[in-house]
Order: sequence, then C-alpha cells, then structure tokens
Amino acid sequence: MTHRAQLSSRRVFSGRVINLDVDRVRYPDGSEGELDIIRHPGASAIVPFLSDPAAENPQVLLIKQYRYATDGYLLEIPAGRLEPGEKPGDCARRELREETGCEAGSMRFMTSMWTTPGFTDERIHLFLASDLTQGETRREADEFMTVQPVFLTEALKMIERGDIQDAKTALGLLYAAGFLAGR
Amino acid sequence: MTHRAQLSSRRVFSGRVINLDVDRVRYPDGSEGELDIIRHPGASAIVPFLSDPAAENPQVLLIKQYRYATDGYLLEIPAGRLEPGEKPGDCARRELREETGCEAGSMRFMTSMWTTPGFTDERIHLFLASDLTQGETRREADEFMTVQPVFLTEALKMIERGDIQDAKTALGLLYAAGFLAGR
Repeated sequence: MTHRAQLSSRRVFSGRVINLDVDRVRYPDGSEGELDIIRHPGASAIVPFLSDPAAENPQVLLIKQYRYATDGYLLEIPAGRLEPGEKPGDCARRELREETGCEAGSMRFMTSMWTTPGFTDERIHLFLASDLTQGETRREADEFMTVQPVFLTEALKMIERGDIQDAKTALGLLYAAGFLAGR
Repeated sequence: MTHRAQLSSRRVFSGRVINLDVDRVRYPDGSEGELDIIRHPGASAIVPFLSDPAAENPQVLLIKQYRYATDGYLLEIPAGRLEPGEKPGDCARRELREETGCEAGSMRFMTSMWTTPGFTDERIHLFLASDLTQGETRREADEFMTVQPVFLTEALKMIERGDIQDAKTALGLLYAAGFLAGR
C-alpha cells in the first residue's frame, strides 16, 4: 500500500511472517520524520461456538498454543495470517479447519481492528463461527496447540482473572458476547 | 529476557521504538526452527473517566490520533510505551498527563494482554482512570491528536459500528464496561 504521507520507503528486513520498512514520512503539520513499520498481511480470528450461540450459556472452542514470544502457552481463539489474495472470510474458514478440524456452517463477520498501529499495519478480522462439524486438523510444523471447549461465561471470567492474556482472544470473546446480546 | 526455548539470538535491526531479532528456537517437541521477533518494551493504556465511573452513563476521554501505519486517524484511548525501568502504573499516569493534560486521582489496574504474540513480545497494561483534574498537555513531536469526550454507551456503539478500530481501545472499553458492571 502506498501511503499519502509516504515520502520514501526502505525495506530493511524481509522475513517469513513480517517485513520491516523504514519510511520517510510527512506528518499532518507538514513536518517530516522517520518511522519504523512492520508490514503484515493481516489476519483473521474466529470465535467458534460449539453449541447454539443464542442458547443460555453456549460453549466456545479455545486453543492452548505455544508462543515463543511469551515464553509459554496462551489460551487463544483460532487465528492466522491471510495468504496472498485471500479474503478474510476464506482465511477464517481455512484457519478454523486447520487448527480445530471444524467446518463452520455459519461464519459471521464481527469487526476489524488494527492490532498495534504504533508500529505495524497488521489488521485482524474477527468472525463468529457456528454450526460446526468436526473434521481433521492440519497444522503447520511450528504450531503446537491443543483444543479446549469452554463455556462462554467461564471464558469471560478467565479474561477477568487474567487466565486469557491474548488481546485478539479477549476482544473476540467480549465482542461476541455483546454481539449476541444484540448491543 | 532470556527464553528457555532460545538457542541463539541475532539482532538484525535496532530502531527508536522496536528492535527485531531472529532467534533460533527449540519447540516443545524438541524440534528446532527460526523465528523473527519484534522486541518491544511494553506499553500502558488508560480508559479515562471524565465523570464518576459508577454513574448511569459516564463519559470517557478518547483521542483522535494520526497513525501513519493506518494511513489516517484512529480514535484511541491514551497510551504509550514504558520507559526503561518504568512501572506500568507510572507509565499510565505519565501518558495520561502528556496526552490529555489530566491527572488521575484514581488509577486502577484492569489487566495485561499480549498484543500480537505471533511476532512480538509487546504486552499492554490496561488501567481505569478516574477523579481527573485538568492540567497541561505535553506531547511528543510526532504525536498529532485531539481529545474527544464520549459517553461510554456511545463508545461501545462506536466499536460495534466500526468507528473504533484500534484493538487496545476496543478491549479497554469493553473490559472497563464489564469491570464496572462487576462481572
């Protein structure tokens, strides 16, 4: 993407997941400066409901995943990067299938969020999946995870207690709870 | 921080805000691989209440901020990076003061979240500020923002409508709404 405020851009690192650019930028007041920016293709994340989302206290499927950056395991909703040209909804279905083995009869878009706009253009697209049918998981070689069904009310308590510490997961669950409440 | 799974680490970029390391890693199954990881000092973000948070429909203070990474302006809660050795609560008070000019009579910790653990060790610490008194703002040279008071119910609708698209802001507001409801 070319930014209107971009004067020049220099790629200083190309990785498997991220690229790092140092951009010369014109700020809104006309002044100039330099910014380090992580270029990311974007991601989709899914709150998968095991039972009817409209039921009294539905169950959601969480994933306990090894995260090197946190030096341990995190409880997360299924998620993953967009492949080149892939639509967020297609990515959501693919990641749900790969990480949990489930096909979603219904995949509803909730919202899109910038994960940390101070240093990256990564955007995450949040979906609510329901009417799941179980198939086979197919994970990438560096993905270490186990699937864990949790009642939505319990998942919300885990956010409050600090047992869920992944931003997209807390956001997806809180948003889904409000979304279902028709707020 | 030394990670238990870290076999070696090579710094490939040092910036003003972020550093980028390429680490050789031992995964939980004993296999090895290479990971790109953005090292970040962490940040604090504050949901500042202009009126009594326990009141019927309190007002919060949002900031409309220019974000180069998003090619435009975002509505956000006040936030910023930890300085070396700085405690999250001190950072929260400092950032609130710098960005809004307000001193908080009460600053309550809510939770900490990993912003995007797939490629960075950035953690954000969320606080709820109240009993505000107005002082002078003092922003950094590359910060372009205006302060905007919003009713909490309206802010929650803005999340739903997609007018708030910053993850920490949506998370902070949704969390604060539940925190205050005593969930």
